[in-house]
Amino acid sequence: MRVGLFGFGKTGKAVATVLLQSEEADLCWVIRKTTNLQHRSVPEFLGIKDDNQGIIFSKDECTSAELFEKRPVDVIIDFSSADAVLAYGEEAAKRGICIVTAISTYPEETITYLKKLSERTKILWSPNITIGINFLMLAAKILKTIAPYTDIELIEEHFKNKKEISGTAIRISQTLCLSDTDIKSVRAGGIIGRHEIIFGFPHQTVRLIHESISREAFGNGALFAAQNLMDRKNGFYCMEELLIPYFNLK
Amino acid sequence: MRVGLFGFGKTGKAVATVLLQSEEADLCWVIRKTTNLQHRSVPEFLGIKDDNQGIIFSKDECTSAELFEKRPVDVIIDFSSADAVLAYGEEAAKRGICIVTAISTYPEETITYLKKLSERTKILWSPNITIGINFLMLAAKILKTIAPYTDIELIEEHFKNKKEISGTAIRISQTLCLSDTDIKSVRAGGIIGRHEIIFGFPHQTVRLIHESISREAFGNGALFAAQNLMDRKNGFYCMEELLIPYFNLK
Amino acid sequence: MRVGLFGFGKTGKAVATVLLQSEEADLCWVIRKTTNLQHRSVPEFLGIKDDNQGIIFSKDECTSAELFEKRPVDVIIDFSSADAVLAYGEEAAKRGICIVTAISTYPEETITYLKKLSERTKILWSPNITIGINFLMLAAKILKTIAPYTDIELIEEHFKNKKEISGTAIRISQTLCLSDTDIKSVRAGGIIGRHEIIFGFPHQTVRLIHESISREAFGNGALFAAQNLMDRKNGFYCMEELLIPYFNLK
Amino acid sequence: MRVGLFGFGKTGKAVATVLLQSEEADLCWVIRKTTNLQHRSVPEFLGIKDDNQGIIFSKDECTSAELFEKRPVDVIIDFSSADAVLAYGEEAAKRGICIVTAISTYPEETITYLKKLSERTKILWSPNITIGINFLMLAAKILKTIAPYTDIELIEEHFKNKKEISGTAIRISQTLCLSDTDIKSVRAGGIIGRHEIIFGFPHQTVRLIHESISREAFGNGALFAAQNLMDRKNGFYCMEELLIPYFNLK
Repeated sequence: MRVGLFGFGKTGKAVATVLLQSEEADLCWVIRKTTNLQHRSVPEFLGIKDDNQGIIFSKDECTSAELFEKRPVDVIIDFSSADAVLAYGEEAAKRGICIVTAISTYPEETITYLKKLSERTKILWSPNITIGINFLMLAAKILKTIAPYTDIELIEEHFKNKKEISGTAIRISQTLCLSDTDIKSVRAGGIIGRHEIIFGFPHQTVRLIHESISREAFGNGALFAAQNLMDRKNGFYCMEELLIPYFNLK
Repeated sequence: MRVGLFGFGKTGKAVATVLLQSEEADLCWVIRKTTNLQHRSVPEFLGIKDDNQGIIFSKDECTSAELFEKRPVDVIIDFSSADAVLAYGEEAAKRGICIVTAISTYPEETITYLKKLSERTKILWSPNITIGINFLMLAAKILKTIAPYTDIELIEEHFKNKKEISGTAIRISQTLCLSDTDIKSVRAGGIIGRHEIIFGFPHQTVRLIHESISREAFGNGALFAAQNLMDRKNGFYCMEELLIPYFNLK
Repeated sequence: MRVGLFGFGKTGKAVATVLLQSEEADLCWVIRKTTNLQHRSVPEFLGIKDDNQGIIFSKDECTSAELFEKRPVDVIIDFSSADAVLAYGEEAAKRGICIVTAISTYPEETITYLKKLSERTKILWSPNITIGINFLMLAAKILKTIAPYTDIELIEEHFKNKKEISGTAIRISQTLCLSDTDIKSVRAGGIIGRHEIIFGFPHQTVRLIHESISREAFGNGALFAAQNLMDRKNGFYCMEELLIPYFNLK
Repeated sequence: MRVGLFGFGKTGKAVATVLLQSEEADLCWVIRKTTNLQHRSVPEFLGIKDDNQGIIFSKDECTSAELFEKRPVDVIIDFSSADAVLAYGEEAAKRGICIVTAISTYPEETITYLKKLSERTKILWSPNITIGINFLMLAAKILKTIAPYTDIELIEEHFKNKKEISGTAIRISQTLCLSDTDIKSVRAGGIIGRHEIIFGFPHQTVRLIHESISREAFGNGALFAAQNLMDRKNGFYCMEELLIPYFNLK
C-alpha cells in the first residue's frame, strides 16, 4: 500500500514514524506547508533506518496532478488542515485514490464536497482516529443496549492546560445519549489523555478505559483505516463503520 | 414469567431477592435441600415487602411431576448442586420449561444428559452468569480480532482466602487463547471480585474491568438469561450465545 | 478491653460483628433505642459463635450509672445518634471511660459539652472512622507539602441514590484546601464508596484510592481508635491525631 | 543554584530540559562521553528559549579541577555511568560541591568511595529519583505499621520489551518486606511505567498508584533532591531520607 501524507507537524511526524515502521505501508511522500525541510528524506529526518524513499515536499512546489502522476499512491492520509483537501481532492478522486482524513472539524461545505467526491473514491473522516477510542464507543453502545437500566458516567482526564472539554468525551457522550454536562473533566499535571466509561449495575460495575500514551496511536489508527477502506465500495465512511464488521460475531 | 428456584444458600437467597424485586419475574417457589425453612414465605423470610406468594419447599417432600403440576412455572433457575437437574430435568423438558443453570461444573455425563434434554426445551448453562463478565469476554474477543498485535494481560483480584485461580479468569483466558499461567492473581483482604483485561497497544492502552459488588449480580444475570432464552428455539446455550445478537450492529 | 456499644442499626450491627470477632475487644453490651431485641445475646443474634456474653439492652431500661456499675467497660463506642452522649457522657467521664464516637454531626453545644467532658476522660470523635480514609487524608496532605505545584483532583463514586456530595470527599477537599466545587461526583449503580485523590505532576501521576467494601470497616476503625486512645492523656481527639505518631519516621 | 550535569543520553536530555525550565536552577554545563555535540549550547540544542549559557563539553577535553575552577557549580547531577564519579568525585568533595547521582547500580567499592567522599560533602544516591515513587514507598511503609494485618500486593506494568522485573518494584517489595516472587509483572504494549501497591483490609481496599508519563520526572526528582540536600550536613543520603522531614506532622 503506497501512502502519501499531508501534514508534518507534531502529529504528522508521529504518523510518519508509524508508517515507516509498518511493513504494510510504503510512505512515498509527505506534503508540508513550509519549504524549510523541502526534499529531505523522511526516514533520514526522523532518524529511522529504512530503505524507504519517502521525500518531503512543500505544498506549493507542484500541483496535485503532477504529484500523483510522478509519485502515485493508493492512499492519502491527511493530518494537515481543513482546506488541504480542497486542493488535492478532485485529482485524488479522479484517480480513485483513497482518502483517510483526521482533521478535527470541517466547514459544512467541505463535508458536502467530501461526500460528493466519495461517489468516485473511498473516503474516511474521523476526528479521533485511534482504534481504542472507537472500539470503546461501539462496545459501550452495545452494553447500553444489553443493560439499558445501568447508570453511565464518563470521566476524562487531561493535562492541566487543556481548557475545553475533550472532544472525544463529547463524541462518546453523544453516542451514548448522555448529557454533555455529565462529563467529569479532570485536569492534572501532564496526563496525556484518559477516558473512562463507567457502567453502574446494581450489583456490579463495568469500566471501559482508554489511555493515550503518545500521538503515534493516530498513525496506527490511520493505517488500520487505510487497510480496511481498500476493500470497501466508494463512499464516505467514519471509523465506527470500519469497525462494525469485527463486531458481527456468529 | 413464572420462575421456580433451586438452591437457597447464600447465592440462592441473593438470586431470590433479585427475582422478588423484579417486575418481570414471579417467583413461585424455592426448593431447598434441608427441611428447616419448609413452607415459609420467601418474601417474608427475606424481609421484602411483596404480594408474591413464593413458598420454600424441601427437596424431598414431593416429586418434580407433582410440583410442576400444582405450581407450574415457565423457567427453572438452578443455583443448587450438580445432581439436582437429574431429578427434575425429565419432567421439566416434558413440559417445555426453560432451564437456566449456573452450576460451576457438571460431570461429563450430566452435560450429555442436558444436551439430550435440550432437544425438547431451552437450556442455558453458565458457570459465571453475570452480564458484565460475559459482555467483557465478547468485547475482548472482538478487540483481539481488530488488533491481533496487542499484548493481552489479565489481572484477577479476590479476597485473601480464595485459594485457587478464579474460574472466571480461566474462562476469559481460554476465550482469548492466553496461557493460564499468564493470569496475575491478587489476593488481598476482602476484595469481592475484580477482573481486568489489559490490551497493550504500542501507543495506547485499553482496560476492560469488571468489579463485583454482591452476589445479587447472579440474580440479574439469571433473569436476563431467562428472558432472552424464552424466544429461542430448543437447544443448549451458553451466556455468550444469548449476548451475541446485541453485538450485531448495523 | 471491655467495650460497650451504643447503636444497633445496620452500621451498629456491622461494628458489633467486628468487635465480636476481635481478640482484643470484649463486647459487654449493646444499647438500642427500641425494646424489641431486649436481653437477647449479641453473638447469638448475629449468628457468630463466640463465648462472649454481650447482651442487648434498650436505651431506657436503666440509667447510665446503673449500667456502668453492673457492667463496667473501658470504652464506649457510639454509632447511635447525636443526643445519646448527653445521657451517658457525665457518668462515663466520671469513671474515666474512653468514648469513641462516629456520629456524623453534632450541634455546636454538644461539641462544647464533649470538649468539657474530655478534661476528665479521653474522647475521640470522627464522622468517618475508617483507617483507610484517614490515612489517605494525611498522606495527601504530606504529598501536597512535598510537591505544592501539583494539581490535585478528587473523584468520589457512590451508588445512584446518594443525593448529596460525599461528606468524606468534602473533608478531604477541606484538608487539602481544594474548592468544594472541584469534587467530581460519580453516581452509578450500586457502588458502595470509592474516593480517588489524583496528584498531577508534570511528568508523573500519583493516585491515592480508597474503596469501601462493607460497613464493617467502621468497626475496624473504631477498634483502632479505642486501642490508640487508651494510652493518651485526657483530651478531645480526631482520628488524624491518633494516626500522626505512625507518620513520624526516623 | 548552579548545576552541572553528567550524562546526555535520553534521560540526561530530559533532565536538562527540566533544569533549563526551572527558575531555581541554572544549568552551567553538561558533560558528554562523545565529542560530537562539543561546545554547542544546551538550550539551543534542545530547542528551549532561555538566556541560559549552558555548554556541552566532552568528558575528556579538560580535567575536573579545570572545569570546576572555570565554571563553578553548587551541585553535580549525575545520570551518566557508574565510573563517572571516580573521575570527578575527589575534586567535587574538595570544593564541597553537592552530588546527586541517579546511577542504577554501583559496584561495592564505589559505594565505599562515595561514603568516604561524603565526609567532606553532601551526596545523594537514588536509583529511582522520582518524587512520586519515593513518596509512595514511605506512605506504604507507614500504612503497613498502622495496619500490619493487611495483605499487601504489588503490580508493576511496563512495555512489552522490558525483560526483567522492575527495579523499582523490587525496591518497594524490599521496603515492605514482601517476597520478590509476589510482584505481579504486566508487560503490555507501550506502557511507560505503572506501579500499584494494594493494601487489602478485610472491609476496605487502599491502592497507592504511580504512573510515569515521561523521563522528565527524573529531572524534577533530581532538582528536588538538590534543593533539599543543600541545607543538610555532609553525609551520604538516599531519597527517602530527604522526604522524611515532610512526614513529621505535628
